Amino acid sequence: MNEKMITLGKKRSVIRELFEYGKKRKALIGAENVFDFSIGNPSVPTPQAVTDAMKRLISETEPVALHGYTSAQGDFKVRRKIAESIKRRFDVDADPELIYLTCGAAASLTVTLKALINSGEEVIVPSPFFPEYKVFTENAGGRLISVPLRRPDFQLDIDAIKGAITDKTRAIIINSPNNPTGAIFSEERIKQLAAVLEDKQKEYKNDIYIISDEPYRELTYGADVPYIPKYYGNTVICYSYSKSLSLPGERIGYIFIPSTANNSGEMYAAVCGAGRSLGFVCAPSLLQYTVGECTETTPNSEVYRKNRDLLYGSLTDYGYEAVPPDGAFYLFVKSPEPDAAAFCERAKKYELLLVPSDDFGCKGYVRISYCVSTEQIKKSLPAFKALIEEYK
Amino acid sequence: MNEKMITLGKKRSVIRELFEYGKKRKALIGAENVFDFSIGNPSVPTPQAVTDAMKRLISETEPVALHGYTSAQGDFKVRRKIAESIKRRFDVDADPELIYLTCGAAASLTVTLKALINSGEEVIVPSPFFPEYKVFTENAGGRLISVPLRRPDFQLDIDAIKGAITDKTRAIIINSPNNPTGAIFSEERIKQLAAVLEDKQKEYKNDIYIISDEPYRELTYGADVPYIPKYYGNTVICYSYSKSLSLPGERIGYIFIPSTANNSGEMYAAVCGAGRSLGFVCAPSLLQYTVGECTETTPNSEVYRKNRDLLYGSLTDYGYEAVPPDGAFYLFVKSPEPDAAAFCERAKKYELLLVPSDDFGCKGYVRISYCVSTEQIKKSLPAFKALIEEYK
Repeated sequence: MNEKMITLGKKRSVIRELFEYGKKRKALIGAENVFDFSIGNPSVPTPQAVTDAMKRLISETEPVALHGYTSAQGDFKVRRKIAESIKRRFDVDADPELIYLTCGAAASLTVTLKALINSGEEVIVPSPFFPEYKVFTENAGGRLISVPLRRPDFQLDIDAIKGAITDKTRAIIINSPNNPTGAIFSEERIKQLAAVLEDKQKEYKNDIYIISDEPYRELTYGADVPYIPKYYGNTVICYSYSKSLSLPGERIGYIFIPSTANNSGEMYAAVCGAGRSLGFVCAPSLLQYTVGECTETTPNSEVYRKNRDLLYGSLTDYGYEAVPPDGAFYLFVKSPEPDAAAFCERAKKYELLLVPSDDFGCKGYVRISYCVSTEQIKKSLPAFKALIEEYK
Repeated sequence: MNEKMITLGKKRSVIRELFEYGKKRKALIGAENVFDFSIGNPSVPTPQAVTDAMKRLISETEPVALHGYTSAQGDFKVRRKIAESIKRRFDVDADPELIYLTCGAAASLTVTLKALINSGEEVIVPSPFFPEYKVFTENAGGRLISVPLRRPDFQLDIDAIKGAITDKTRAIIINSPNNPTGAIFSEERIKQLAAVLEDKQKEYKNDIYIISDEPYRELTYGADVPYIPKYYGNTVICYSYSKSLSLPGERIGYIFIPSTANNSGEMYAAVCGAGRSLGFVCAPSLLQYTVGECTETTPNSEVYRKNRDLLYGSLTDYGYEAVPPDGAFYLFVKSPEPDAAAFCERAKKYELLLVPSDDFGCKGYVRISYCVSTEQIKKSLPAFKALIEEYK
């Protein structure tokens, strides 16, 4: 057997570990008594338009066509609809022949990394970062190079990124709105990043890609999220409908390569090859057709805004230090003791399930997923208050 | 970029290539005039019970629960139902904690291979074989060792397999009913294989696994398909509902490790780790629940039997040589000229789309997928007749 895989399987992601703990705890003392802030499972139901589209597809489409294989890269008409939506929304040229439908965000990333990376090459990731980035990079034979985000606003630290680029750097993963901080990288920073990468590409006579992982693109509270292909050619968009359409379990997303990328046709071929190699051809067909019908459907993020305001307001009142989130549904809170894992253990006494930041490549913080019911947040506030009191 | 992935993406699977050619050809001259026997896309609609289950789930389940993340290895209740079905049908002990729901057959295989194989280790595959086995084995860092099946019945050649086992052999992939030959490996041969593997395990003090890839298990015409865990402990079952429930586009299946496997808990951990590494956690949730409702639903393979009888009977009448298929929905026909690819090119003149056997690791045959309408077979017969006449 492969020992690395055994270790990975036993260790599990700390988030999924907590999710499983929460499930057991809920079964024991009742779901309403566990304040589970562990996982990014949206509490907002999928828009009615999505449910209607699914029902309509199942009732009106011939089953052999609906459930049959599509092209490996996804149904062409669906890809065309997605391309049209990209053009309309971002004013960027989008070719359906450069879109590859995937089985969700994880698939978008593993396929993209396998397509772009050769063994031993480096992928820069601003930290904190989604822990699976490391697992996915290593699966592709690459090395993850973690570069801290700037404090206290968790914006891109352009000088630090510049300093980390070597002749082995093949890509940088950008995730904005960010998991776990909720920050949105500003247009100014993206422009600076693009300029640095252009220079470094010339210096090393190499392509360096921005992999833009954007499952939270639509979940914002006012701030704009710059669309990377407008600023930088060698970009790959990794998109997922998990959060925007509240379909996390359904695993549907896409990879999009802008025509402005160098050798975009070759890049797309590499994506097709990596999809084939990993076993990710033909994303789930019913879901392909469903998102094809819903490219213009927007999420209702009002409850997340309400949750954010309530949670951020209350926690900072109680004495917690937190990053004000501009998007996504995560609050990144400074641990009142240096060891965030110890703090999370203590929080469990109050039935608060928080994720320590250590696995995000950053010490001393906790991530609170507030994609829960507002009711849960209200009920949890005394627990948060009592918890911080322990440190006073 | 990764050159290997570019090559793989450009080359494409010969089957998918032909599938794409067929799509274009149909658009040009009308679907009814193209005799597309290229792909294993079932022509039998999914059973009504499946459609009903999907509709019921969508109408009656709270969307947040229905479309939310399940556990990485799949919803526990669904796994329990699958375990019960395995016990009932095969009289084999099955633990839901040793079942991992996957995004279809390809995922089952890439995850299993990544879990079991270390770089440089060997995987024996009887040839002809599904071409992607090679791609998947190489993705896991392994080497595929092709061992020809016995002619003319395409049964396992036990001596040849025995001779191919080395201290680097980690697994053998068994696919019965077989793609592309339609053969079912007999109980006698499975027993002999198990005995050889037991011996070789002792000789090399190593585990050697049987990976049983069985998407066609339920598609048989009378012959029994031995359930491998009854004969050999170190087995991994890779199952998919694509063919049995006519859901090829929906990507749903499972990996099952019998408790009789050595260190089955470690093996399962390795599967979980490999799933995580490749990005295959939490198979599509609606489909998980759907198959959970339909574990006892059986396919209607009557049309395939009818197609088999008509096609096999007619083609052998015309002078083709073919393997009589006991299961699946493929007819494996000897090419009337040594170069099967040249024969397939010639077949295109008659709008017959057949897959040459070369990519299956075997020269001189073609695969005919007869999971099409009986009408298509009837209409295609004069073309098959005219084609063989060219060789007389």
